[in-house]
Amino acid sequence: MKSAVVLLSGGLDSTVTAYLARKDIGKKGQLYTLTFQYGQLHEKELGCAMRTSMLLDASQKILSLPLDALVQSSLTGQGEIPTEEVEVEDIPSTWVPQRNSIFLALAFAYAETVGADLVYTGFNIRDYSGYPDCRPEFVDQLQKALNLASKRFVETGRGIGIVCPLMYKHKWEIIRLGVELGIDLGKTWSCYRGGKKACGVCPSCRIRLKAFRRADMVDPVEYEVRR
Amino acid sequence: MKSAVVLLSGGLDSTVTAYLARKDIGKKGQLYTLTFQYGQLHEKELGCAMRTSMLLDASQKILSLPLDALVQSSLTGQGEIPTEEVEVEDIPSTWVPQRNSIFLALAFAYAETVGADLVYTGFNIRDYSGYPDCRPEFVDQLQKALNLASKRFVETGRGIGIVCPLMYKHKWEIIRLGVELGIDLGKTWSCYRGGKKACGVCPSCRIRLKAFRRADMVDPVEYEVRR
Repeated sequence: MKSAVVLLSGGLDSTVTAYLARKDIGKKGQLYTLTFQYGQLHEKELGCAMRTSMLLDASQKILSLPLDALVQSSLTGQGEIPTEEVEVEDIPSTWVPQRNSIFLALAFAYAETVGADLVYTGFNIRDYSGYPDCRPEFVDQLQKALNLASKRFVETGRGIGIVCPLMYKHKWEIIRLGVELGIDLGKTWSCYRGGKKACGVCPSCRIRLKAFRRADMVDPVEYEVRR
Repeated sequence: MKSAVVLLSGGLDSTVTAYLARKDIGKKGQLYTLTFQYGQLHEKELGCAMRTSMLLDASQKILSLPLDALVQSSLTGQGEIPTEEVEVEDIPSTWVPQRNSIFLALAFAYAETVGADLVYTGFNIRDYSGYPDCRPEFVDQLQKALNLASKRFVETGRGIGIVCPLMYKHKWEIIRLGVELGIDLGKTWSCYRGGKKACGVCPSCRIRLKAFRRADMVDPVEYEVRR
């Protein structure tokens, strides 16, 4: 029986990834979702992640991780969330240093504990190429390193693999894929702010809205403004 | 000015490492210590880590990390701490999967935030060769991976280095080094249990007591039994 751990924030990419993981391992496979409360400004995504875990019959673990005590990022309350369009090549102020390394190391710890062979992430480089910790060369190196630290790998030679099914997809393709998979995208949250409606002007909202337009669809999420 | 982050548990190895880091970066260098409360059975080491940070004029960050919610280890309360001698080649039940990967990823996040160039750890393979996540090949791979995820490395080419000054030292050599550095080793804690006195029979106590004998010294720590 196949089993997998999914890094699930409750945003668009990780939700689509969770559905793909369930599809890959089949109905009988064991699916585990791992969600972090790492001091981000709001927890609207959390509810979305819980909903998805339930719908996918996944065992969810929510881990509290006070990254805001360690790093400076506008995502964890230091500085303002930008409202202007961000150049794709820049590393924005919302970037949290080593966030993905920390999440993946924790996911490997969990995968080794529950005996899962795969760790799924929604990383993609098309729309966030400014984030160095989403790039495939990073993922490859980290996978090697984490397996070297693994008891299972050392004892049996069977490593754990990182799967990034969205790595080379554009956001608009991810949206189409999500719709094909039957996901209610109105129940995913991408906005960096935690308002009643999505703000529509933070970098994450801008990328999302642009992608929905490019996919020729209307985002079912409610927005303050649609830029 | 040089600056460094030290992974400091308050045990023997990390305490000696912190002193070596201070020596390396000089009196004027900025020293940061990072200590984790990760659900270990007790927090006796914590007091030792706080004392060392104060003595070394280091800025200490104590981070709460509920690893016990994620992994199975006798060190975090699942199963019994063994009392028999452990074969050096085995991976013991006290091993916490990916602990060092998680700690190093967090240390890199912190180092990038405070602008430190070096991350010091007390890893050594002589007396804990059963721990895959202490081996130099793991450390090298992880250093590569974490730098690939680093904004600073991507933007400036200057990476962060992991320093393991005790990697090839035997425990008895570390003890002698600690004494040479003027450290009160009675104020370091190695026992896996959190009793008033060290238990003397857990694997960590056994290794420590044996090493003190080999170094021709008496461990100033109080023990229930000295095996």
